Amino acid sequence: MEREQLIEDLVAANHILAAQGVFDAYGHISARDPANKNRYWLSRSMAPGLVTADEVIEFDLDNNPIRRGENRLFFERVIHGEVYRARPDVMAVAHNHSPSLILFCNSETRLRPMVGNTAFLGEGAPVFDIRNVDDDGDLNICTVAQASAMARALGDASLVLLRGHGAVVVGETIRQCVRHAILAERNARQQIEAAILGPVKFLTASEIEYAKRNKPKDPERAWRLWKQQAMPPIN
Amino acid sequence: MEREQLIEDLVAANHILAAQGVFDAYGHISARDPANKNRYWLSRSMAPGLVTADEVIEFDLDNNPIRRGENRLFFERVIHGEVYRARPDVMAVAHNHSPSLILFCNSETRLRPMVGNTAFLGEGAPVFDIRNVDDDGDLNICTVAQASAMARALGDASLVLLRGHGAVVVGETIRQCVRHAILAERNARQQIEAAILGPVKFLTASEIEYAKRNKPKDPERAWRLWKQQAMPPIN
Amino acid sequence: MEREQLIEDLVAANHILAAQGVFDAYGHISARDPANKNRYWLSRSMAPGLVTADEVIEFDLDNNPIRRGENRLFFERVIHGEVYRARPDVMAVAHNHSPSLILFCNSETRLRPMVGNTAFLGEGAPVFDIRNVDDDGDLNICTVAQASAMARALGDASLVLLRGHGAVVVGETIRQCVRHAILAERNARQQIEAAILGPVKFLTASEIEYAKRNKPKDPERAWRLWKQQAMPPIN
Amino acid sequence: MEREQLIEDLVAANHILAAQGVFDAYGHISARDPANKNRYWLSRSMAPGLVTADEVIEFDLDNNPIRRGENRLFFERVIHGEVYRARPDVMAVAHNHSPSLILFCNSETRLRPMVGNTAFLGEGAPVFDIRNVDDDGDLNICTVAQASAMARALGDASLVLLRGHGAVVVGETIRQCVRHAILAERNARQQIEAAILGPVKFLTASEIEYAKRNKPKDPERAWRLWKQQAMPPIN
Repeated sequence: MEREQLIEDLVAANHILAAQGVFDAYGHISARDPANKNRYWLSRSMAPGLVTADEVIEFDLDNNPIRRGENRLFFERVIHGEVYRARPDVMAVAHNHSPSLILFCNSETRLRPMVGNTAFLGEGAPVFDIRNVDDDGDLNICTVAQASAMARALGDASLVLLRGHGAVVVGETIRQCVRHAILAERNARQQIEAAILGPVKFLTASEIEYAKRNKPKDPERAWRLWKQQAMPPIN
Repeated sequence: MEREQLIEDLVAANHILAAQGVFDAYGHISARDPANKNRYWLSRSMAPGLVTADEVIEFDLDNNPIRRGENRLFFERVIHGEVYRARPDVMAVAHNHSPSLILFCNSETRLRPMVGNTAFLGEGAPVFDIRNVDDDGDLNICTVAQASAMARALGDASLVLLRGHGAVVVGETIRQCVRHAILAERNARQQIEAAILGPVKFLTASEIEYAKRNKPKDPERAWRLWKQQAMPPIN
Repeated sequence: MEREQLIEDLVAANHILAAQGVFDAYGHISARDPANKNRYWLSRSMAPGLVTADEVIEFDLDNNPIRRGENRLFFERVIHGEVYRARPDVMAVAHNHSPSLILFCNSETRLRPMVGNTAFLGEGAPVFDIRNVDDDGDLNICTVAQASAMARALGDASLVLLRGHGAVVVGETIRQCVRHAILAERNARQQIEAAILGPVKFLTASEIEYAKRNKPKDPERAWRLWKQQAMPPIN
Repeated sequence: MEREQLIEDLVAANHILAAQGVFDAYGHISARDPANKNRYWLSRSMAPGLVTADEVIEFDLDNNPIRRGENRLFFERVIHGEVYRARPDVMAVAHNHSPSLILFCNSETRLRPMVGNTAFLGEGAPVFDIRNVDDDGDLNICTVAQASAMARALGDASLVLLRGHGAVVVGETIRQCVRHAILAERNARQQIEAAILGPVKFLTASEIEYAKRNKPKDPERAWRLWKQQAMPPIN
């Protein structure tokens, strides 16, 4: 029963992130199995906006599908296994290339919180450069060496930016991970535009610390609206 | 009868502000009761785009619902009571986090009027910093101390920006409040983009003064179009 | 019959400019009567996207309706009469407040042609400041003195920007006027963004001169697509 | 049979590029005939979003239609013939005026790759100035002299920018050409916004070289999603 709810949220998460422009044809989100911390659930390699429950597959932390014979797997699924290994607190992982985050992937300017609900960005999102692992190659994270280095760059943050590529976002639940991915993209857009006006005031250190100790107020309201917009009920 | 019209306008205001991108899952707008200046009407805590007349509740200026047993109340409703107390001329209050206003919440650059119909911004919208009230906490306005300080920062303006948070917008009517919220967001966007081109010419002091003495021409036309777009008539 | 075509184009122009975001609840476009150069056609005061042939009224160049008893007239219709007086070549006039043009209304930076099809902007669109006519007042053009000064600022250009207000755009036909209004808005947006990259190369003087002597190639294709998008045929 | 597939892809390419905002009323994409390298297929002169298989015509490399009596031909089709002559590897050519590319047409700042999947931009897209061919004229490419000079400026690149005009994009297949046109537009937008934040880190020389030797991973997923969005299946 709990698993059914997990798969339902994971399918909704795929549709929400596609509808909100965080995913396009690419991007993926997984959820750790609460009943078995060494397993996670992730869709087959496909456009996120088309995912159904039938397309969600169980993996171990070596990123092998539990059921034999599965095919059409994301080549970057090693991201998920390595983050779950490094971060016992993390229950959901998303990898995306949302348009405004890219700018901070390729800049010395740090992505920092503009408003209370992006306090999870802390004193600035870390940036991972894959060229610190390999001298040569493309920008995708496909090996354990690359993914574990990325997980180290993530540290205890909620989001790590990938130079020339995108981001990896985590959460304590699927819904929090979705929230982080959407709000990080919005914060990025607002921070860029604010930079046009001159120096930007970000959250203070004490405001960031306060947010670590206290949950945001009523985050479920946004999830419900996003879900309704992405998956409108059929009459 | 007048109350029926008030509730109808308040419901429309919620839908219009959601459709125009001023509200998303969050944000709220209230109206003071014209028959009892110590009462105001506000929806339950919910996504504004889903509000119906049945969800609108009466409050006193201590922000207590008149009818016993009401639940699902906005935790920031103290904003409304304190503004109505401080400003007898105000008949409607909106609290929002529209995307371009945020930039001016976190900048030394003042939000100033680009065009005649945003003359209500005056010589620059005031900015309220909640940290002037509490050394610690989140950015939400939940106490009388916070809300009354915010109302003092608002002064006799039509809009106050909240650092790291959003804005509070007021009007002499629901329709004027909606107009202020939408036009302030548009002005913010235009002022940012204009800053790219070099120094910006704002309305002159005499133009701002003139607008205080004279009503804008035909504001109802915009209200009607916004309402039709947000709540298209069903055939 | 020719008049029927004129009214049909004028109705389509209203819908196209609304659909393209050049008009919102406000803005108006008129056409001079080809059979009587001292008359023009303009809708009643209403949202442009709702205009039908029944709402289009005939005016003389003093901006009085030909038929007695007409009401709901645009208070800024003097713009049309004065431009037709000053510019015998002009057969259509639009007044709008499109969002990117505003930035150039309030800047020393001139709006200049980025691409071949905006060569009509010449060496830079003129800017009219209503405060050169009146020391005090709002920004609207409501008197003959204001409108004739605006027409002088327009000179022989295709567009004049109005400080703190919007623009007046003209054409030799309704379709050309619509084209000028849409392309000027797009050019404004592109010029702002290009300014971020550093110095911008505009059309050369000889390219601007060439465009004055030669018609653009196949402008009708855009009109047909815009019309189809704004007024999709009903099956 | 192979030709049927080619025409189907070419029709889809027209609809996709219109739906993605790369084409508007203008823009065209052709495909070289794989069975006869001296022939190519291109629609009649029309809005790309309206193209059907019946509107696709065969041309020789002198840009003459193979079937006698064809009319409504693009006046800039010489672009296609000259690129196919100069570049035996090219199997598809698109000409467009997408909004963010224009900024790089008119700037000394080079369009450079922000992310792995735009490595095809290399060390910076070349820019062609038609005034190097003619001292006078409009910006359109209508003569063999203009088109062959443009093809020389293209060199072995995937895209050449045209000052004051737009771009010519090529691919080894229709689908790759579509991909290049869409991703170049997105890269342009991101590069502009990144410039606001300060110096931008682009792909390294070795990353660009790697991308020349290796195909991108799973580009078909984007094609399928774009096609579904542009041409939704009818139930």
